[in-house]
Amino acid sequence: MNIDEIVSRISEDLEYIKQFTATPGEGCTRLPFTPEARSTVDYLKKIMTEAGLKVHEDEAGNVFGILEGKDQELPCIMMGSHYDSVVNGGDYDGIAGVISAIEVARLMKENDVKPLHTFVAVGFCDEEGMRFGTGYFGSKAILGQLDAEYCRHYTDKNGVSVYDAMIEYGLEPEKIKGAKWDISKIGSFIETHIEQGPVLDSCGIEIGLVEWIVGIQRYMFTVHGRSDHAGTTPMDMRKDAVDAATKVISKIPDWAREKADGTVATVGYIKTIPGGMNIVAQDVEFTVDIRSKNNDHIIDIVNKINQTLQKEAGAFDGSYESDTKLVITPVKLSDLMLDISEKSCMEHGYSYKRMLSGAGHDALAIGQILPTVMLFVPSKDGRSHCPVEFSKYSDIGKSILVAYDLIQNLDNQ
Amino acid sequence: MNIDEIVSRISEDLEYIKQFTATPGEGCTRLPFTPEARSTVDYLKKIMTEAGLKVHEDEAGNVFGILEGKDQELPCIMMGSHYDSVVNGGDYDGIAGVISAIEVARLMKENDVKPLHTFVAVGFCDEEGMRFGTGYFGSKAILGQLDAEYCRHYTDKNGVSVYDAMIEYGLEPEKIKGAKWDISKIGSFIETHIEQGPVLDSCGIEIGLVEWIVGIQRYMFTVHGRSDHAGTTPMDMRKDAVDAATKVISKIPDWAREKADGTVATVGYIKTIPGGMNIVAQDVEFTVDIRSKNNDHIIDIVNKINQTLQKEAGAFDGSYESDTKLVITPVKLSDLMLDISEKSCMEHGYSYKRMLSGAGHDALAIGQILPTVMLFVPSKDGRSHCPVEFSKYSDIGKSILVAYDLIQNLDNQ
Repeated sequence: MNIDEIVSRISEDLEYIKQFTATPGEGCTRLPFTPEARSTVDYLKKIMTEAGLKVHEDEAGNVFGILEGKDQELPCIMMGSHYDSVVNGGDYDGIAGVISAIEVARLMKENDVKPLHTFVAVGFCDEEGMRFGTGYFGSKAILGQLDAEYCRHYTDKNGVSVYDAMIEYGLEPEKIKGAKWDISKIGSFIETHIEQGPVLDSCGIEIGLVEWIVGIQRYMFTVHGRSDHAGTTPMDMRKDAVDAATKVISKIPDWAREKADGTVATVGYIKTIPGGMNIVAQDVEFTVDIRSKNNDHIIDIVNKINQTLQKEAGAFDGSYESDTKLVITPVKLSDLMLDISEKSCMEHGYSYKRMLSGAGHDALAIGQILPTVMLFVPSKDGRSHCPVEFSKYSDIGKSILVAYDLIQNLDNQ
Repeated sequence: MNIDEIVSRISEDLEYIKQFTATPGEGCTRLPFTPEARSTVDYLKKIMTEAGLKVHEDEAGNVFGILEGKDQELPCIMMGSHYDSVVNGGDYDGIAGVISAIEVARLMKENDVKPLHTFVAVGFCDEEGMRFGTGYFGSKAILGQLDAEYCRHYTDKNGVSVYDAMIEYGLEPEKIKGAKWDISKIGSFIETHIEQGPVLDSCGIEIGLVEWIVGIQRYMFTVHGRSDHAGTTPMDMRKDAVDAATKVISKIPDWAREKADGTVATVGYIKTIPGGMNIVAQDVEFTVDIRSKNNDHIIDIVNKINQTLQKEAGAFDGSYESDTKLVITPVKLSDLMLDISEKSCMEHGYSYKRMLSGAGHDALAIGQILPTVMLFVPSKDGRSHCPVEFSKYSDIGKSILVAYDLIQNLDNQ
């Protein structure tokens, strides 16, 4: 298997798919159930067929290429990622992992491999959740976690529901339960994906072996004080929501740094109300996003935030509220598949690193239920979800070779 | 002089003027050069005339009621405040001080006082600067600090310039220099005004004798970091603008509390950019408003902010910018007039307190040049610039009696 040939094929695919964006010249915008999504799926079907795969598009807009195994009783090995993107995103996030799965099938065809287990290359629909404020749509659908009611509930910024967008796209949302797989028929799931962070690129490492997908807790906090004239209200008569809120916010990164296990905490949004230069703030809203492979660390930071807000807002007889936006527990990926992948890296002479995924992925949804592994490809400067997102085709090719080895190994277990 | 009669007259005036608002039922909105302003000025002219004053409206929209003194060589004693309001403001800020000056004239008429010095009751135009983003328009005009170019420069949110608004209102902006007084003709300026803060009301004190109008420095700071994915970027690889900015913002109130001399500091506005829950902030903008009667305290806090921003942004190789919005030095008001006013309070048996004005006023503009004093009337719960703004007519009446005594005393000096 010649990596140059792999690079040649996947670069042709990825360069071709670049054209399917709603924002030409301003990055990839490939929202679910759009003409761009349809063109991409049509192309994926074409190259799946050429790779000898039997094509199937399910009721949720996922596209599968199936290479039937010699033993139909055995559970399949599934590999893939998502084909949608964020708005003004990059040309690698998601789609590189779909093309990689198809490339594995090509390599099996090229090497005349007839696997025991059925091999399934998948392109999931709507992992990003960008259009409807959801996420993991396609992967949740194959796990049987979606229904027509869900599709009716979520709408895009134009008020179009998932339900109506699916019909417009040619799908039947009332039949979405038909996308569910018998879980016992999936033996393992492999996702290759760009890292979307700076770790591999900054260390010059070629392959990331993802051991954990971090847990996430996300909150909107609101500190309530009292608005006052910035000139006429002495310091000791104020209920300054900024004073209390920033005394907590300023400590949150330090609390994360004190933890190990890749713990991170981010306050990305702060809003002062009313927000006048000469008005003591009545309220401060801020978000906190905390991630770690160790759920106890997350809980500990959340507790510290609540205790310190209580203390600081209480100091001037103010108050605060907390609104939980997201709670996901960490997912441990398959030790067996990690060990096999590590051995493959060593045999190929690829530098590798066992690491965390700080972002969610289809593997997060699936890894909660099925044996799963992720392989990360370096992202230049850690940039992602933006037009400058870049990963080298040669690095993607290396991850394909490791995935190929893993699949052959699993097939022979 | 019966305070009940004073209360009866000024309450009739202030209750009548309440109707001149662009937002009936939602507080006072009396912007400069509007029909509401015109109706108010017309009413002021009427009651000035009834009080025996000679009425004059100048080229800047200020309205004067003049009681000629017996000795025309002596400089005048001027008293008043402004007749405009903020949007959705209260019924006392500014206008109560104008009515108080007219009431002083009524009391002189009632007591058959023929002063040596000319007495001038003034209603200044556009102190608040709400419509055009300016401030002290009328008081700056009498000091000769405005010209037609200034009027052309500032516009309201609909793009209407001061210049065009003045013409529409019936004034001639090209002649605004005509509003300038010969400064030697003004011997002293007295402004009674609601406190707009909680000090007098919370202490149960009837009169505030304003010794200092604080200096103000106002800045917009921008901390520059780098936006990163909140999940995939380890803590030690971040340039988190929120981390640096809040480590400074959280200390600013403490730095103000460490100072004496009524020093206050306020961060009323914070904005994170791009502001996503799951994105490390690239930039944080925040405002700081610092006030003190001691200019060194202001400068010291500004220096601390700059040094700490330098250190915190430097810690991750970030940077920051500072944009100066306002620098006003503190103004010391007239000791002579304060001493006379204090004696009057004692004679009347009014509780009083020497204090700061933390807000700017027409007396700030005038006090930089002429002997000036301010008398504060308690504001219920310190509320101002809002519809619930409230001061008792009896408290306003007391400040009128003190101002009356002060003026008689100055007249006899």
